[in-house]
Amino acid sequence: MNWAVIMAGGSGTRFWPESRKHRAKQFLDLFGPKTLLEQTFDRVKKVIPPSRILVFTASDKAASTAKLLPIPRSQVIGEPAGRNTAPCAAWAASLVLKKDPSAVLGIFPADHFIKDEITFSKVLRVAFGQADGSGMPVTLGIKPDQPHTGYGYLEIAGKKATVRGTPVFFLKRFHEKPALAQARAYLRSKKFLWNAGIFIWRADCLLETTRRELPAVFKTIVKLAAGGISAVVAKKLFTKVPNISIDHGLMEKLSGGILTIPVSMGWNDVGSWASLGDLLPVDRAGNLSVGTNILVESSGNVVKGTGRLIATVGLKDHVVVDTGDAILVCPVSKTESIRKIVVELQKRKMHRFL
Amino acid sequence: MNWAVIMAGGSGTRFWPESRKHRAKQFLDLFGPKTLLEQTFDRVKKVIPPSRILVFTASDKAASTAKLLPIPRSQVIGEPAGRNTAPCAAWAASLVLKKDPSAVLGIFPADHFIKDEITFSKVLRVAFGQADGSGMPVTLGIKPDQPHTGYGYLEIAGKKATVRGTPVFFLKRFHEKPALAQARAYLRSKKFLWNAGIFIWRADCLLETTRRELPAVFKTIVKLAAGGISAVVAKKLFTKVPNISIDHGLMEKLSGGILTIPVSMGWNDVGSWASLGDLLPVDRAGNLSVGTNILVESSGNVVKGTGRLIATVGLKDHVVVDTGDAILVCPVSKTESIRKIVVELQKRKMHRFL
Repeated sequence: MNWAVIMAGGSGTRFWPESRKHRAKQFLDLFGPKTLLEQTFDRVKKVIPPSRILVFTASDKAASTAKLLPIPRSQVIGEPAGRNTAPCAAWAASLVLKKDPSAVLGIFPADHFIKDEITFSKVLRVAFGQADGSGMPVTLGIKPDQPHTGYGYLEIAGKKATVRGTPVFFLKRFHEKPALAQARAYLRSKKFLWNAGIFIWRADCLLETTRRELPAVFKTIVKLAAGGISAVVAKKLFTKVPNISIDHGLMEKLSGGILTIPVSMGWNDVGSWASLGDLLPVDRAGNLSVGTNILVESSGNVVKGTGRLIATVGLKDHVVVDTGDAILVCPVSKTESIRKIVVELQKRKMHRFL
Repeated sequence: MNWAVIMAGGSGTRFWPESRKHRAKQFLDLFGPKTLLEQTFDRVKKVIPPSRILVFTASDKAASTAKLLPIPRSQVIGEPAGRNTAPCAAWAASLVLKKDPSAVLGIFPADHFIKDEITFSKVLRVAFGQADGSGMPVTLGIKPDQPHTGYGYLEIAGKKATVRGTPVFFLKRFHEKPALAQARAYLRSKKFLWNAGIFIWRADCLLETTRRELPAVFKTIVKLAAGGISAVVAKKLFTKVPNISIDHGLMEKLSGGILTIPVSMGWNDVGSWASLGDLLPVDRAGNLSVGTNILVESSGNVVKGTGRLIATVGLKDHVVVDTGDAILVCPVSKTESIRKIVVELQKRKMHRFL
């Protein structure tokens, strides 16, 4: 059967001051009344019933995460430490295998945005079928519409099949974030897709690959999945496993091949405040304005308030966010550096803003 | 004897959101614990005793203005309407003449900044002496240190005298705000000074010039100074007088000449948020930061908060002001346009921010 694991362990600082230590990006309601995690859950449950959806998050957020979603607490797994996606995926695989030896596992980041959910559902069903039949991992590859330098890329090889109108390709290789010239070449070639971090893989194959390629992870995961160990011991064990992603730690080691399904579904990794301007309706001058704002002769800004008036004049391409206790102002081009503010807050021990 | 009138009628919007309808620039404490008006009063009283200082302000602010200053309510005159400086000066002259027929009147804007108060006092004493002896108005002209296009200029003619080391010149003429090329030529020639709006003039000469050049103003002023008329009638009368400045309405009409004393005293008209960066201590990156602010890789900004955290990264040459209920963000180069925000607030009937 098809299973899903939603990875909600991120602790992003790029949405400060909205995101804080205990309110990471996946717990923000950037696009309306629901958090990114809830939106991801709602999207996934159209293909996989809630009873077969696991959610992994940091252990101190497990209880609140369970309250947010219509699943029992037992389906929310608290990770004792953040160790990237490979250990998490292996853990999930070993848990679902105990209930379903033929499980196929979809792995989804909790904090991305997907506009076209119908296409997502359709492609996901094809991906589950392909993963189940082939034993190979299937990745969803986003068709690029710009030479983005902030994403990893998937280079496709020959076509394997076309399933209900959806072509499925073999993956040639993974590529790291490119420089701009490279990204432009990728875009022109049409053989490169954005790596959206969505993987579908038979749980037994995933776990077997872990046993072979990441034996230290495998040993720990077996112990954790067996249950009956204390939180202290679990943390001690998990902290020691390598911090490594599914792509690098597992998939790249496969000689048996990887599949990729190219898809256009309005995907965005919601990487920064600036990305909101691409995802939400903007005014004629290209401003995204949420709250009580007066923007005079201003363009290309992301302005988000919480009741207080924000007024700008002549402001171009800036982010202004007011959360009540803190105000952020920075150029759109500098949103990647917001974490430096968080570092500075830590340095000054201004804990209430962290 | 020497008298002073401080003109505190301004209703500036350039310091929004700090300045509001009932809290004009002169009532702001931009430079420490005291308001600009109090600072002006303290500066003037070093030369003229408080009992001979009158303060003119808008009638609805007269009571609160009197509370701010160590003078009786009777020395604070509420103008029924804003009519620029000529009617106000004539009114002040007629009031002081009733008590002192030989009064010499110093006229001071309430909302300027002067760093070097010792030089101010010294030059002011010379100016009072010259005004008393000659019957001519004396203007203080600020020696320019940059080709400023935001000020009017005074062009000097020949030297009249040097008094206790202070040279006194005849004024050739007033000049409006120049274009940049013109301002550069002014700076090079060394014959042009900034018009600081500070005038010293015998009250009888001032009033006689008003009678001759602005008879409508004169007639109304005589009635107002006589007293015994209702606020409603006073407003009706005053609203009808021409809106005209001392320079244009009175001084420029004089054939008898005007005197000017050039002075360097760290004067600034505090015309905008940007000017604060020139007047207050800034950090190494040229930021003026007031409040709990974290400025990362930011330079040339004016950031003023009131308790809440303001954090910036990569911000260059912007003004950020938080007053608790409203936040302003604009480039330093656009501070002249802040009034457009106020216009927009009026249009949207957002009265609580006005």
